[in-house]
Formats: sequence, structure tokens, C-alpha cells
Amino acid sequence: MQPAERRTNVSEAVLAAMRQTNALFDSEVVGKKNIEALDRVYTANARILPPGAPMVEGRPAIKAFWKQAIAAMGATSAKLATVNAESAGEGVVEIGRADILAGGQTVTVKYVVHWKQEDGAWKWDLDIWNLNE
Amino acid sequence: MQPAERRTNVSEAVLAAMRQTNALFDSEVVGKKNIEALDRVYTANARILPPGAPMVEGRPAIKAFWKQAIAAMGATSAKLATVNAESAGEGVVEIGRADILAGGQTVTVKYVVHWKQEDGAWKWDLDIWNLNE
Repeated sequence: MQPAERRTNVSEAVLAAMRQTNALFDSEVVGKKNIEALDRVYTANARILPPGAPMVEGRPAIKAFWKQAIAAMGATSAKLATVNAESAGEGVVEIGRADILAGGQTVTVKYVVHWKQEDGAWKWDLDIWNLNE
Repeated sequence: MQPAERRTNVSEAVLAAMRQTNALFDSEVVGKKNIEALDRVYTANARILPPGAPMVEGRPAIKAFWKQAIAAMGATSAKLATVNAESAGEGVVEIGRADILAGGQTVTVKYVVHWKQEDGAWKWDLDIWNLNE
């Protein structure tokens, strides 16, 4: 997936806030296994649609999912990069790419996140991903 | 995935137009292998993020993808149902469920579609999916 044709109409300030949230997921959640930091990553009513599992609704259930998934994968970092970001009303629809380091191997994931503002921060309200292979 | 907590704030007229597009995909594209009907399903600059393949951009490439994928699966129908639809600016962000009949078996897919209006019709501008198992 090439980050070629960006159709970004999102301000640099919002993109920077998004990068901050993504960095939290990488360093705090995946890096330090600080699952409670997901409070600052997902909205309270967020939903995730993981491959290989049914939809998971609400932050407590999402925390339980990631706690288990990060341990099962042995993930130590997750570098997220925006491929395309588009304003959509009060939110942003993002296409992204994640490089997850787990057990010495890098797994590349593509995803769509519907971002919303909550408590002044930009967070993931809807998150779905899959693998290229 | 239970269609329980719907947070729909989309008008019944738009939901009906969405059902019409979804029905086209089922009856024309998957049912009759009329790949050209994808003109009425996807926007011209749509992107799809299929599991097991890189992102596909633009309607011609998307047509080639589905022609191959429908044949490879032996799919004969694809029943799409909206689980949640939310207005997002001029578009709609939908969580949905697809039951795809292929070779006597039903494969259940969950998806997120970012809908936009094009030429007076509601179409898929961004489409990502994965399987529960």
C-alpha cells in the first residue's frame, strides 16, 4: 500500500493530535503494556472490528481485547502511519498502516479509523483492520 | 455480531437508498456477474481494503478485484445488512454484516463502509472488511 494519493483535507493541527494518539498506542499500550492508556486512545463508546473475532463494543471490552491480543502476539511496538485522512462532519475518516513488531517479525496491517473528539482529544471511535497476506 | 445498539442518525430515505445500492451488489454483481453494475455501487475514486490483499484504488481496479474474487469464491449471493449507520458530514459511516453464499456455504463478513453521494446515488467510497473466524 503506497501512501501515494493523499486526499487529506484535515488541518495540520488535527493530524498532529492524531499522531499523538497513535504514539500513545505504540509507546504506552503496546510498548509498556499500560492498557489503561486506552482511555486516551478510544472513545468511551468505541467499537473495534478485529479480524478473527466478532465486533467488540465499549472501552472496557476493548481493553480486555487488547490486553489479550498484545500478550498473544508478543507485540512490542506498533508504528501507525496515516495514508489518507478526510474530514467527515465533526470527525475524520482515516486510512492507515500499522507495522507491528512481534517476536522479531514485523506484521503489516491496514486499517480504517473513524476519529472523534472526546474530552478535547482526538480518539478512535471505530477501528477495523486486516492483513495484506 | 448483534445488531443491538444502533446509533443511527441517518434518515430513512438515505437508509433506503443505501439498501438499494446493497441490493445491486447482491443481485447484479454477485448474482448475475454483471461487474459493470459496480459503477452504481462504488464512487469513481473509491478504495477497498480487502483482507489478504493490498488496498485497491479506483473503480476499474475494484472491478478487476471483484471479478476475480467472486469467481475464485464461487459466490452466488451477498446479503448485506446495516448494523449501524452514522451521519458524518456529507457522508455516512456504516458498520455492516454480509452473508455471502459460496459453494453451498455461508461466509459471514463484517465491514465498514464510508458512503458518499455521487450522481444522485449513495455509493461506497471506502470499503474494508474482515471475517470473524
